[in-house]
Amino acid sequence: AYRLGAQLHTATVNQNSLSRAQRDSVSTGSEGPHPEDLALSKKGAIEDTEKATTVPPAVHGDWVLFHPVYTPEELKAVLHRQPETFSDKLALNLVKLCRWGFDLASGYKHKPLPPNSGSMSLEELRRGGYVLTEQAWLMRILFLETIAGVPGMVAAMLRHLTSLRSMRRDSGWIHTLLEDAENERMHLMTFMALKKPSIWFRAMVLGAQGVFSNLFFFSYLILPKTCHRFVGYLEEEAVLTYTRCIQEMEAGHLPEWADMPAPEIAKDYWRLPNDAKLLDVIYAVRSDESTHRFINHSLANLNPKTDVNPFALREPDMHVKGKKLGFERSEAEEYVAESHKLLHQAKDPRVDKSEQK
Amino acid sequence: AYRLGAQLHTATVNQNSLSRAQRDSVSTGSEGPHPEDLALSKKGAIEDTEKATTVPPAVHGDWVLFHPVYTPEELKAVLHRQPETFSDKLALNLVKLCRWGFDLASGYKHKPLPPNSGSMSLEELRRGGYVLTEQAWLMRILFLETIAGVPGMVAAMLRHLTSLRSMRRDSGWIHTLLEDAENERMHLMTFMALKKPSIWFRAMVLGAQGVFSNLFFFSYLILPKTCHRFVGYLEEEAVLTYTRCIQEMEAGHLPEWADMPAPEIAKDYWRLPNDAKLLDVIYAVRSDESTHRFINHSLANLNPKTDVNPFALREPDMHVKGKKLGFERSEAEEYVAESHKLLHQAKDPRVDKSEQK
Ligand SMILES: [Fe+2]
Ligand SMILES: [Fe+2]
Ligand SMILES: [Fe+2]
Ligand SMILES: [Fe+2]
Repeated sequence: AYRLGAQLHTATVNQNSLSRAQRDSVSTGSEGPHPEDLALSKKGAIEDTEKATTVPPAVHGDWVLFHPVYTPEELKAVLHRQPETFSDKLALNLVKLCRWGFDLASGYKHKPLPPNSGSMSLEELRRGGYVLTEQAWLMRILFLETIAGVPGMVAAMLRHLTSLRSMRRDSGWIHTLLEDAENERMHLMTFMALKKPSIWFRAMVLGAQGVFSNLFFFSYLILPKTCHRFVGYLEEEAVLTYTRCIQEMEAGHLPEWADMPAPEIAKDYWRLPNDAKLLDVIYAVRSDESTHRFINHSLANLNPKTDVNPFALREPDMHVKGKKLGFERSEAEEYVAESHKLLHQAKDPRVDKSEQK
Repeated sequence: AYRLGAQLHTATVNQNSLSRAQRDSVSTGSEGPHPEDLALSKKGAIEDTEKATTVPPAVHGDWVLFHPVYTPEELKAVLHRQPETFSDKLALNLVKLCRWGFDLASGYKHKPLPPNSGSMSLEELRRGGYVLTEQAWLMRILFLETIAGVPGMVAAMLRHLTSLRSMRRDSGWIHTLLEDAENERMHLMTFMALKKPSIWFRAMVLGAQGVFSNLFFFSYLILPKTCHRFVGYLEEEAVLTYTRCIQEMEAGHLPEWADMPAPEIAKDYWRLPNDAKLLDVIYAVRSDESTHRFINHSLANLNPKTDVNPFALREPDMHVKGKKLGFERSEAEEYVAESHKLLHQAKDPRVDKSEQK
């Protein structure tokens, strides 16, 4: 179904004519022209002055509609990259520390289900600390997404400023980092549509963001590889979190969410069908986290000063990103060469192969 | 002409297989897939797994090929927004202070040509301080572009972080701000192709960026409207700078640049013809600065907390941006309404008009 571009407004401030709300029924979701809308709006607006082709770019998210992109084994198994270097170990232990602190603060015990869980009521499972309520899941997800949106933006800004003051090209990293940051923010906007958080929760988010964004800022200046590894391990946790959430929904432990329709912003952003449910959204988000995991572990394997971003021209599909933790440096190199080859062939099949050298 | 996506590398560090250079003859310019390349690469790479439409988005820069987008009057006249509020005056005076300091440090006097300038040799004009050498112009442009790339990125990061911690939508500002930042960085990369700066110059750039980015960061937290106004006035200076550069080139005062071909990165980024000259590039950059001027003066007229970015869905063409300083708030509102109307009509001509209310 078609929806108007949104005249969005911030949810908690004064209404006025410029910020007049047409929320939910008319949202663009990504707060700018969605790729699928670009062509039409420009054609209508500028048909008499601009001769540019105006059609939408590739919508990567289409594959989320095909949930079998993951095998049943992958849905059960959650990938983990074994730490090899001191940098890896430092990053992993920092994530474990964050995870421990967050679990402590949120009262999340995360005990495995007992053998007799089949005969226990949902109330008993919740009371025993075996499963979370929808509310607890939502708080956990909202908090994680506010933090998750920080690294990509901070890293992109730092690389942008480095490119400016060193007068060197960036080799395509900025774009991928900004895409990740935007994607995380959309995760937050999506789940935010389910519930408005309390003042107490917002205060906690404010404090955590302040601390984390400063720490990440200074860390990235000194140890960018460690930071990408840290984010890779963080994203492993995110995939684990969403995988468990999906398992609990599919086991019927989250009845309030069982048949909940997908928020409009999510249908728009991931181009889901109109009858999409919240479960479809969480599958999409889980797929996104696999992408973040793959990209950050791959970037952590590169030299941040000299190497091109292998994902600048294209990305592997989810059959790769869902089952593989990242490219080793040599694999990234092969992937870049392959990308160039494909680009070359697509544009000019007649060019002699030897000229590529 | 077609060029391969680049296997770029940073200009001053070790060569290795992953960062192997195929510079200039194969550059993508914008260090990622250029919109015109997206379709083909994805088709070649993923034809068997993805059903997404893969075609390039609008390339706004096509109009730079038509220099008469500016009337002769506009080429001579340079627009200036009269300050109205205290915020405006503060921003304008800050830009004047920056300009004065920069002129002092660079020894730029910028005296108007004397009446007998037609009979003076170029050497006499340079000695008299009436025109700059190519070298002096390049240093001036490089310095300006390293500073110009800061505001958009810093503002975008701050708005991104605000959206995350306040759990509110951003209303499309982030995208436009990032586009401006990327555009400015491409200006720098373009002129950097003409000359590698000295260590002394780089040290000055490092110091200036450190000071300016911190000042802009804290200022944007407190007075975002003033910051956008400041950038608007800064962009007025940029348009003036490039206009004067063009005038000097067209008057024959910059012979080294008279017939210089456009750098490859510029041909790629602005999709210029293969025989494009440096003058064509400077016209394109001057047009970009007019866009920055228009956007920032327009954003300075809005409420940064409540109002949508009027340029989230589309932008006016250069006939508007070259002759107008920005939208007043009421004009921005009308433009947003018009954008929605066009989007609506393009997607679904049968929808009843009354439903738009
Ligand atoms: Fe996320
Ligand atoms: Fe993530
Ligand atoms: Fe610029
Ligand atoms: Fe500019």
